Amino acid sequence: MYDFLNDYNQTVHPQLLKEFIDINNKKLSGYGLDDCCNDAINHIRQILNSPNADIHFMAGGTITNLTTISHILKPYQAVIAAETGHINVHETGAIEATGHKVVTVKTEDGKLTPELIKPVLDYHCDEHMVQPKLVYISNTTELGTLYSKQELKELYQFCQKNHLYLYLDGARLAMALGAKDNDITFPDLAKYTDVFYIGGTKVGAFAGEALVFNNHTINHDFRFNMKQKGAILAKSWIIAVQFKALMQNDLYISLGKHSNTMAEKLITLFDNHGFTFAATPQTNQIFVKLPNQLANKIVSLYAVDNLGQSDPDHICLRFCTSWSTQEVEIENFATQLKKLLKN
Amino acid sequence: MYDFLNDYNQTVHPQLLKEFIDINNKKLSGYGLDDCCNDAINHIRQILNSPNADIHFMAGGTITNLTTISHILKPYQAVIAAETGHINVHETGAIEATGHKVVTVKTEDGKLTPELIKPVLDYHCDEHMVQPKLVYISNTTELGTLYSKQELKELYQFCQKNHLYLYLDGARLAMALGAKDNDITFPDLAKYTDVFYIGGTKVGAFAGEALVFNNHTINHDFRFNMKQKGAILAKSWIIAVQFKALMQNDLYISLGKHSNTMAEKLITLFDNHGFTFAATPQTNQIFVKLPNQLANKIVSLYAVDNLGQSDPDHICLRFCTSWSTQEVEIENFATQLKKLLKN
Amino acid sequence: MYDFLNDYNQTVHPQLLKEFIDINNKKLSGYGLDDCCNDAINHIRQILNSPNADIHFMAGGTITNLTTISHILKPYQAVIAAETGHINVHETGAIEATGHKVVTVKTEDGKLTPELIKPVLDYHCDEHMVQPKLVYISNTTELGTLYSKQELKELYQFCQKNHLYLYLDGARLAMALGAKDNDITFPDLAKYTDVFYIGGTKVGAFAGEALVFNNHTINHDFRFNMKQKGAILAKSWIIAVQFKALMQNDLYISLGKHSNTMAEKLITLFDNHGFTFAATPQTNQIFVKLPNQLANKIVSLYAVDNLGQSDPDHICLRFCTSWSTQEVEIENFATQLKKLLKN
Amino acid sequence: MYDFLNDYNQTVHPQLLKEFIDINNKKLSGYGLDDCCNDAINHIRQILNSPNADIHFMAGGTITNLTTISHILKPYQAVIAAETGHINVHETGAIEATGHKVVTVKTEDGKLTPELIKPVLDYHCDEHMVQPKLVYISNTTELGTLYSKQELKELYQFCQKNHLYLYLDGARLAMALGAKDNDITFPDLAKYTDVFYIGGTKVGAFAGEALVFNNHTINHDFRFNMKQKGAILAKSWIIAVQFKALMQNDLYISLGKHSNTMAEKLITLFDNHGFTFAATPQTNQIFVKLPNQLANKIVSLYAVDNLGQSDPDHICLRFCTSWSTQEVEIENFATQLKKLLKN
Repeated sequence: MYDFLNDYNQTVHPQLLKEFIDINNKKLSGYGLDDCCNDAINHIRQILNSPNADIHFMAGGTITNLTTISHILKPYQAVIAAETGHINVHETGAIEATGHKVVTVKTEDGKLTPELIKPVLDYHCDEHMVQPKLVYISNTTELGTLYSKQELKELYQFCQKNHLYLYLDGARLAMALGAKDNDITFPDLAKYTDVFYIGGTKVGAFAGEALVFNNHTINHDFRFNMKQKGAILAKSWIIAVQFKALMQNDLYISLGKHSNTMAEKLITLFDNHGFTFAATPQTNQIFVKLPNQLANKIVSLYAVDNLGQSDPDHICLRFCTSWSTQEVEIENFATQLKKLLKN
Repeated sequence: MYDFLNDYNQTVHPQLLKEFIDINNKKLSGYGLDDCCNDAINHIRQILNSPNADIHFMAGGTITNLTTISHILKPYQAVIAAETGHINVHETGAIEATGHKVVTVKTEDGKLTPELIKPVLDYHCDEHMVQPKLVYISNTTELGTLYSKQELKELYQFCQKNHLYLYLDGARLAMALGAKDNDITFPDLAKYTDVFYIGGTKVGAFAGEALVFNNHTINHDFRFNMKQKGAILAKSWIIAVQFKALMQNDLYISLGKHSNTMAEKLITLFDNHGFTFAATPQTNQIFVKLPNQLANKIVSLYAVDNLGQSDPDHICLRFCTSWSTQEVEIENFATQLKKLLKN
Repeated sequence: MYDFLNDYNQTVHPQLLKEFIDINNKKLSGYGLDDCCNDAINHIRQILNSPNADIHFMAGGTITNLTTISHILKPYQAVIAAETGHINVHETGAIEATGHKVVTVKTEDGKLTPELIKPVLDYHCDEHMVQPKLVYISNTTELGTLYSKQELKELYQFCQKNHLYLYLDGARLAMALGAKDNDITFPDLAKYTDVFYIGGTKVGAFAGEALVFNNHTINHDFRFNMKQKGAILAKSWIIAVQFKALMQNDLYISLGKHSNTMAEKLITLFDNHGFTFAATPQTNQIFVKLPNQLANKIVSLYAVDNLGQSDPDHICLRFCTSWSTQEVEIENFATQLKKLLKN
Repeated sequence: MYDFLNDYNQTVHPQLLKEFIDINNKKLSGYGLDDCCNDAINHIRQILNSPNADIHFMAGGTITNLTTISHILKPYQAVIAAETGHINVHETGAIEATGHKVVTVKTEDGKLTPELIKPVLDYHCDEHMVQPKLVYISNTTELGTLYSKQELKELYQFCQKNHLYLYLDGARLAMALGAKDNDITFPDLAKYTDVFYIGGTKVGAFAGEALVFNNHTINHDFRFNMKQKGAILAKSWIIAVQFKALMQNDLYISLGKHSNTMAEKLITLFDNHGFTFAATPQTNQIFVKLPNQLANKIVSLYAVDNLGQSDPDHICLRFCTSWSTQEVEIENFATQLKKLLKN
């Protein structure tokens, strides 16, 4: 019943598990400073084509976001995010708990643009208001949408011109880079953001995100802040080995592709039945509007995310596929759906 | 040129000054625990008809807001405010700096209602989101509008039913209680809020607000939090004596009335010239939309708040009157305006 | 060379690894609310003989400490700790970063007693000082020492009488419960603390601590604070399965015993050579004072913790054994030591 | 009975009151940006012989300390203070509430030296510990002692060499500069500290401290942090006018001198009776050890600070004189003391 609930409902991809088992007979120094971490860091640097990238491993998205953002901002500075941004909605005020306001922007598709950010800068004009200093985006976004290379580049250039930093939350970066419409590469991320993270938890790791600082003016003493926020694992190598596996032979992007491919089958299925979507489905998160009765029946059979009424007659459900979704799960759902529609 | 800039552009009302001078030959113990503070507290309690009200004196609005809100909320709890609320816009993230999210609601007139708050409660459903626990309102609001007794009562009852606390920011409470349309009394504030403050800085005090806890489940050890936030003045009696004066013979409300009366003259003036307002002018803050050229001329002569273009042809200016505004200032402005309109 | 550096230098105990691999084919809901977590929680409750214990899994000690302490304290309240306490020294100000002072007490052996705490309470007498509200102890302590049942009970009763909460950091609880001199049982911990955690990271888990609230007046809405601090892993079951294994057949305590047994061999070795200790060695951490030259030689061969000069002629080194220390490592070191002493 | 309780028990010095009354007929813009503030700032700059000093007015010591320190430090950085330092003891954890640890040093006389600070720097060696970055001293200290120019200079040079900032809390700066043994001048403070404040509240102001940044690398955007912490008074000019008066004709230092002179009379009195002191009395705070019975009698007649038993037979009382202490008060006390000693 958890088939389409989220993309972190199964523990770990076999290749990552293998690396994890292999490391078990070694002794290591701990706290992210061992050879095993260095090895994974070098792998990532190569793929980013960025030999000086400053890379850190943390256990989850929220702690990565709060540790990074609180490190970059001064007490009176704020982060700009889409109203739908994960840090604004689903992290229980984690950023505010470190003392910083999240200034939000209403968007159609969960994506920020220079046009949307400009008025925020104009509005915040003196010391009676917070000082926006960091722009937070997610790729894919919380609505499953995607930034193009051009969009990312323009956003970054706008940030540069306006003395803002750009931070990209890559919890679902694999699904972004593995999307049909994607034209962003790993080296682009090193070029067009100040800092971003490569998400592991939603791409086959049992836990783990790899944070990458491209801008070396904002990462000074970062490990102090990591330690303070409880973000350094004693045995950080358990995350590192997983990233080593993910970064080999394009495994990371291919897992993202698989997630998206499985989603496409669901999209086609819903499309064929004439259902519409709350946001253009581009990756592995599908926000479909279903007739009330049908939606309720599905909810009784599957643990899917229920986003409530999109209009009086329709309920919006999120179907989420993952690296571990199997074709048979889609087929079973298709059969189930047919049955439900008959009754 | 500061005539209509704000309501705190002149130091202190003569009667408050007199009390301040009189206290000067006494020795007192300090930190808000002396006879002079107690005396003022008792005056306020009588006027509130609330013998057990827990009352504290602080030097300004922002420190009163941040000390009070941070005292009431647990780390993961949030305060609900109108998007225009002072804590959301003009306190440089003071509330977030104490760790709490300000959840905002779009409003027409700067006023919160049960209908506007209900969806916020419905939306915040689990531990991935902050827990809204406190409702922040201002009376008068930041747009110069007013709550009626019925509105306040309904809001309070809604809060009670939903386990929310209600906090009223009374920076301009005198203008609210002194408004033509007002039907709220001091005892009503003791009945229909959990905590509120009586603003002094904008009503003739050189500094000072009187915070009143009506709900005795949320004020435990409040002085500890005051001291920690730097909110206890060593010589707190300098605020207390001013409130003693303000609370005598209705001085407080009469100063609010005077502010409003002066504003009405401006409103009539603008009305007569056919200008319109960005928010219904009810008290001492007037948001008037003036033709670009006229607005720019006024801005070159008067230090008034410029809120920018309300439409391509009009600029919105805030005119603010106060306890110290004199009729002659209005007359001079009327003359000036006539001149400007002629050219 | 990492043989005696710390007790978290090897990934995971085989039995925990087995459980981890077994869970891999299941789909689970996430965020600590699945059957797998519930199962582990029930195991722990049985062993504590405490059917209502409120149990949460987190990834490491620092995040467990900061999340717990910040949940219990009000903004102006403080935690009392030994000067050597982990939260005071080695967490980069994690507790202060959540807004709370750590009030420290000088101790001989890293242990707190009512006699040591009493003066702190007497001293903190009014709102110009923080309000001590929580007592933090570690068992084993940071100096490798141990609380007796009587000491724990007296401390708890003192706390009760003085309206303080007692929190026990059990990062090395296995070594405490597995110590020769120990007379504390798991059910005692449920009885004589308000909250404590069972450490996994230093006892064969690749990551993970199990926090246990015994006092149900201080854990309300705890998951909100966990989420806010980034302390809930999406796949929390990866910690739960490890605790399930640790709690079976006394594995947890037997791993602690093994650590201690290996340490005893080192202690005997040092004793036989006439070396003395900076703190009475009771468990798996040995603080031995070695002649400067010898110490420096050892440091060049082994990655052990160097605590600097204990006197002009001696350097204090920490030798730390663990669940994964093998007898042959001790023997090799003994041989090495003999060689070094000869030269 | 408040004669010797503290140095802020009387409202305001007549010359300051005069300035305050004079300003009352003006309109000013507010928030510390008006001519009146600029005027006072220029006065202070002249006296400091420091035309670029960046100066800000705040209402009290605690809010000045917390706003300044939280502005300078990064999240993981700490402030070093004497154990007796005001920020460590008597501000209810105000610094910790902004997220920063106060690292304390035991001292004999409340004064920090390079020798005392060096071990703190040696000890804090990696990212598992906070990073000390700011040194906090008070002059006069909380024990009434004094820094010499040589001591201050050496401390500053030590800080410079070790990349630390030096902050001097001048709550009682007047008593320091007005002390018999003093050789520090205002321009020295501009040279040998990074930031310091000139205390007003304890030197005849009804409220107010003037913060001075000498180091222009640490004050960027300071007004943002001031606003956020609630530290900007709307009518800041009420503080400015007082400093204008204090800075004229050496009034500030002469008030300090008067406080000290009154204290000397008390010291002589105690000396003559053979009583001894807990700290060498150098300025207006006298910590005298009196026989239990005598001390208790005095406490029943005067509201003096009781610091408890200094030994089983003696109680330590603090006598504090001020700008407003009159010779007759000393004489009355001498008479009283004689009477008490007779009985």
